[in-house]
Amino acid sequence: MKETAINSIRYLFEPGSIAVIGASKDPAKIGHSIVRNILAGGYRGKVYPVNKSGGEILGLRVYGDISEISGTVDAASIAIPAKFAVEAVRSCAKKGVKHAQIITSGFSETGNIGEEKEILSIAREANMRILGPNIFGLYSSSSSLNATFSASKIVPGRVAILTQSGALGVAMIGKTAINNIGLSAIVSLGNKADLDESDLLEYLIGHEETRVVLMYIEGVKNGERLLETLRRTTEKKPVVVIKSGRSKRGAMAAASHTGSLAGSDAIFDAVMKQCGVLRAENITEAFNWCKFLAFSPKPGAGRAVIVTNGGGIGVMATDACEKYGIDLFDDQAELKRIFEPATPSFGSTKNPIDITGGATSADYRLALTAPSESAGLASTIALYCETATFDSENLAPMIQETYKKHMAAGKPITYAIVGGESVEKAIEILKKDNIPVHGDVYEAVSSLASIYRHKKYLDEKDTRIDEAELDIKLIDKIIEGAINEKRNFLLSNEGSRVMEAMGIGVPKSRTARTMDEAVKYAMEIGYPVVLKIVSRDILHKSDAGGIALNLDRDGEVAEAFEAIMHNARSYKPDAKIDGIEVCEMVRPGVEIIIGARRDPSFGPVVMCGLGGIYVEIMKDITFRELPVNRDIALAMLKEIRSYALLLGARGGAKKDIEGVVDTLIRVGTAITRCSRITDIEINPITVYDQGKGIRAVDARVMISNMKGEKQ
Amino acid sequence: MKETAINSIRYLFEPGSIAVIGASKDPAKIGHSIVRNILAGGYRGKVYPVNKSGGEILGLRVYGDISEISGTVDAASIAIPAKFAVEAVRSCAKKGVKHAQIITSGFSETGNIGEEKEILSIAREANMRILGPNIFGLYSSSSSLNATFSASKIVPGRVAILTQSGALGVAMIGKTAINNIGLSAIVSLGNKADLDESDLLEYLIGHEETRVVLMYIEGVKNGERLLETLRRTTEKKPVVVIKSGRSKRGAMAAASHTGSLAGSDAIFDAVMKQCGVLRAENITEAFNWCKFLAFSPKPGAGRAVIVTNGGGIGVMATDACEKYGIDLFDDQAELKRIFEPATPSFGSTKNPIDITGGATSADYRLALTAPSESAGLASTIALYCETATFDSENLAPMIQETYKKHMAAGKPITYAIVGGESVEKAIEILKKDNIPVHGDVYEAVSSLASIYRHKKYLDEKDTRIDEAELDIKLIDKIIEGAINEKRNFLLSNEGSRVMEAMGIGVPKSRTARTMDEAVKYAMEIGYPVVLKIVSRDILHKSDAGGIALNLDRDGEVAEAFEAIMHNARSYKPDAKIDGIEVCEMVRPGVEIIIGARRDPSFGPVVMCGLGGIYVEIMKDITFRELPVNRDIALAMLKEIRSYALLLGARGGAKKDIEGVVDTLIRVGTAITRCSRITDIEINPITVYDQGKGIRAVDARVMISNMKGEKQ
Repeated sequence: MKETAINSIRYLFEPGSIAVIGASKDPAKIGHSIVRNILAGGYRGKVYPVNKSGGEILGLRVYGDISEISGTVDAASIAIPAKFAVEAVRSCAKKGVKHAQIITSGFSETGNIGEEKEILSIAREANMRILGPNIFGLYSSSSSLNATFSASKIVPGRVAILTQSGALGVAMIGKTAINNIGLSAIVSLGNKADLDESDLLEYLIGHEETRVVLMYIEGVKNGERLLETLRRTTEKKPVVVIKSGRSKRGAMAAASHTGSLAGSDAIFDAVMKQCGVLRAENITEAFNWCKFLAFSPKPGAGRAVIVTNGGGIGVMATDACEKYGIDLFDDQAELKRIFEPATPSFGSTKNPIDITGGATSADYRLALTAPSESAGLASTIALYCETATFDSENLAPMIQETYKKHMAAGKPITYAIVGGESVEKAIEILKKDNIPVHGDVYEAVSSLASIYRHKKYLDEKDTRIDEAELDIKLIDKIIEGAINEKRNFLLSNEGSRVMEAMGIGVPKSRTARTMDEAVKYAMEIGYPVVLKIVSRDILHKSDAGGIALNLDRDGEVAEAFEAIMHNARSYKPDAKIDGIEVCEMVRPGVEIIIGARRDPSFGPVVMCGLGGIYVEIMKDITFRELPVNRDIALAMLKEIRSYALLLGARGGAKKDIEGVVDTLIRVGTAITRCSRITDIEINPITVYDQGKGIRAVDARVMISNMKGEKQ
Repeated sequence: MKETAINSIRYLFEPGSIAVIGASKDPAKIGHSIVRNILAGGYRGKVYPVNKSGGEILGLRVYGDISEISGTVDAASIAIPAKFAVEAVRSCAKKGVKHAQIITSGFSETGNIGEEKEILSIAREANMRILGPNIFGLYSSSSSLNATFSASKIVPGRVAILTQSGALGVAMIGKTAINNIGLSAIVSLGNKADLDESDLLEYLIGHEETRVVLMYIEGVKNGERLLETLRRTTEKKPVVVIKSGRSKRGAMAAASHTGSLAGSDAIFDAVMKQCGVLRAENITEAFNWCKFLAFSPKPGAGRAVIVTNGGGIGVMATDACEKYGIDLFDDQAELKRIFEPATPSFGSTKNPIDITGGATSADYRLALTAPSESAGLASTIALYCETATFDSENLAPMIQETYKKHMAAGKPITYAIVGGESVEKAIEILKKDNIPVHGDVYEAVSSLASIYRHKKYLDEKDTRIDEAELDIKLIDKIIEGAINEKRNFLLSNEGSRVMEAMGIGVPKSRTARTMDEAVKYAMEIGYPVVLKIVSRDILHKSDAGGIALNLDRDGEVAEAFEAIMHNARSYKPDAKIDGIEVCEMVRPGVEIIIGARRDPSFGPVVMCGLGGIYVEIMKDITFRELPVNRDIALAMLKEIRSYALLLGARGGAKKDIEGVVDTLIRVGTAITRCSRITDIEINPITVYDQGKGIRAVDARVMISNMKGEKQ
């Protein structure tokens, strides 16, 4: 089944023949540009212009209708007004076209959903796939096919771009050319009526020419499939993503622009990281990373070294390494051994290595050859400030030579060279060789960091799944009860019972109907206790005087029972009172939050963070797509700043981290297995000292009557 | 006095004559380059090469010694080996030179502190000022003086650069030329033996040609003076600063490179903001800001509008506006009125205004003229994605025209244009006109944001000072006592007494010597109470069993008193026990931290943030240089994320913000007035509901025997 899908998608990138429906003699028309670009691009398959006016275009016979073509037609590019598009799709289906690219706009993006649906249903019936509508087309280096209407010349190379924005896509083609970023493919996704990022990634995973994939995304429809596909892709090659709509206002603007649900940016960010995808903030950053990733080897074990002729930019690069997470080599004695021959006495062999402003190209050659030959050093950050003493005609050759040595040794190197004309000239020359030279220190370091992040992901990748044993039958029964009462949430005591069924510790508690019962239960639970009114008619218990804290004697419990009953009756005389809950008084501990929800794009996700009143304020939380395992759960804890509290900040004892990990696994299992749970939020969970466990103090569970697909 | 200083510093930038000591006939020598550059730069004053070998250099007579020159010599550039430099400085002093620029390196930066001190003392005696040593020289557009050894051609303009790094400075000269950033001055500061940033700013404040100042700083010596000078500078013109050593490792690298104390980066960041200085992360960002600030008018009242032909980059710009703090215009009806004529029906007149991919230069002209003529719109972000339909030959002219209209209307505009060759060409043309065109959306928005940040600073600037009445005599007495005991810290009960003397609420407390006293004090203070051992021999009270919490009856107090005494005696039999402190049990509230310290660079600073165990973990803290006033204190609170807790997060009541502001002022006054206090840290301060005050639960005060300069 999957094999067929890949075969099928191959026809999109490598069709043996392509029809251009709406081919035009008028050079100003899109239908003309496409034919012209296909021919100019050197496409080796057959090209069939189709237009009912017939005749010839650029020396090719124009067919009045696709049905008139005698051979098979693998792909069709449709560039006719929207009102004729449905008919064209129908004729393509009839002809047995495998892939129709619908350039035409004016469908769902302008509210015309009906015709888009019709197109899709025609295609489905004929087993034909649709790219678009509302796209600029597609370029594929493997078949030298430039079926775009925008760019007459595309340089083939190693980077594949998938873009949801047409305008930005066209602009990016131009920008890749200027930046000497060769393309293996660029595909405009448009409205994604049928084919989406996942379908195209299936082809790119095995596409040898593609070394890096760059995606521009505005909204995700089938997120779970995308993540699954991305996981397989990043295993083979790095993927960089730009997603606009990071900010609140940006997300609103994105929603109004694409009509797509932007979703939570924090979750997008987390799941992309989880799939090993590198998220860039802007185009410049994304291009820098892609260029670097396309040509640099993965670093081996070992750390990075900075070589500079200026102390100031050395310090800057050190700052940038910390920002982007590059570890610097630290063994002073080893550094001295390696770099002393290249460093004058008033320089420094500490990392950054400062070969001083007097350094010439020969000094640089020496200093930058050393790391390529030294086992402990895995990568190099080379910095150069233009100086009056440097033999600038040798700048580019020195970089070419030291770059080659690094490549031969399988070590990445990134250069930042700062200065005027001579530097600018060197950058021009070196860019043509795809050598990573940057005019800015931060850019250079950020590029190197991209390959480290991909390596780290692959090194640490761990697909093992941990699940917990839950009493699913009991959970289902509790949910059933709430659904029968037409509720989409569980009451507080139901929430506690679900926690127990999930094997998560809750404060001991029993609901007393009489004063005597309350005293009896309090003794059983152990003092001190808390009393709380139980009534679905009283939501704000405190306002109703329905809570009494810190009761530590029988007499206090009896008094409090009477008082709460009295308060509740005066607060809301007609309230149905189920009783009074007698609870264990929770001792203080570290308060965290653990939750899970079904993300509309990406499916079930789990989260944890600093709990209590700090959740919204500190936003010290982290997400993961499910399933996870214990190591990933622990990694989540290590990501939040408040992890220090669990380790025992300010001299406190280490907390029960194992208990928190266990709870994360249980919550993850619950939302995965119980398809009617839409949301679990336990806040706070009080965490005690190591071995002393946790208490889920307050658990909110949201439910839905709809059975999810998974069970 | 100050007037004289400014007059004197003017001789550095605008000398009537300059001697070059170490002038050489050898073109490879620095002493040759300086003479050549001075001549090539068109300097209109007199140039006197000095070299004992005599003869002629580049047509100028070479003097054997500076004393042989008959006229006055305002400035001297000294470019001879370090070992001869002291003698040269002496001869300059004798000749009455006003400013000596010591190019030569090999002084304090390599550990040769003695000769640097000697040079300084010679200069001081003769009322001569020293620039450097260890510099590349100086360029000043006002006198067409290029007294650098590095750059033969510098383009005059509006940006003045002060740089502590020579290598980076030289590289920046080249980079400014490439980026068409004209310079009004560039000064290499080197070791700052005498002249530092403050001295040079004194000149630049009144220097009309200088519209923006860019500083590259590695370490600050006299920070308080620098801040005072920067305040006066930013009042007149924007100042951009790059300071490397942001990260921990970077700060270490900076310290080893410059020998300067890097200081706390958080404090540097805070005080720069407080002076209205814009801190850039890297050179690219700094240059973008400087270019924009040099040529754009300040925005008036009103908000920004985004105009785009691509939805995707419109969303990106919206994200960037949120990141950089630019408010977008929101009145939908007004936007529709303004932009409807320029927007097709399938576009959008919501901000971002989407004039769609079909827009031509004429459409852009219309859409970008509108904001220049509309009162509510204060600034414009113009975005363009290269399209197949755009008449690209008109891109640059359209931008020139709409830029001019904005300039005429006194409104800033920033452009981001993304694409290939046609875009690149346009950027080349437009850069020559100093029009702010960028290849990246984030860069464009960040540039506009720099001028908004400067405007906001000027709008909100508030130099009023609030001080509190403190019982300074009592504080001094307590400190005196501690100093007599050779302590550099106050004991906990002394700290509480100092708080009281500062007018800051502390938990009620008395030290009891007997059990009866303890019970009596507990009744006076009011239950519940806490008992704590008082002994300077027992530092960790809890470990010694020296604390009893939540005592709410006489009997409990009596029991606890006995228990604590017993525990303390078994813990440390020879401990001197002063008694047992009976304290008010502090009710729970929002816990914050307030502190003050003397920063080694910038003098007294005050801080506040989220307190308790969260201080180090969340780092939700903010700093200000003192003095401050109540409004600034309130602004500090608003800056921290936990301000939401004080406003009453999650349905809680509003807290006593006025009490916190008052405490900040009191702590600020204390460190300013009491010169022997080096450090105050009150953590936690428990804040109660509005009107209910605060309690300084734990106050640590560090002291020093040294009287500060201020009293």
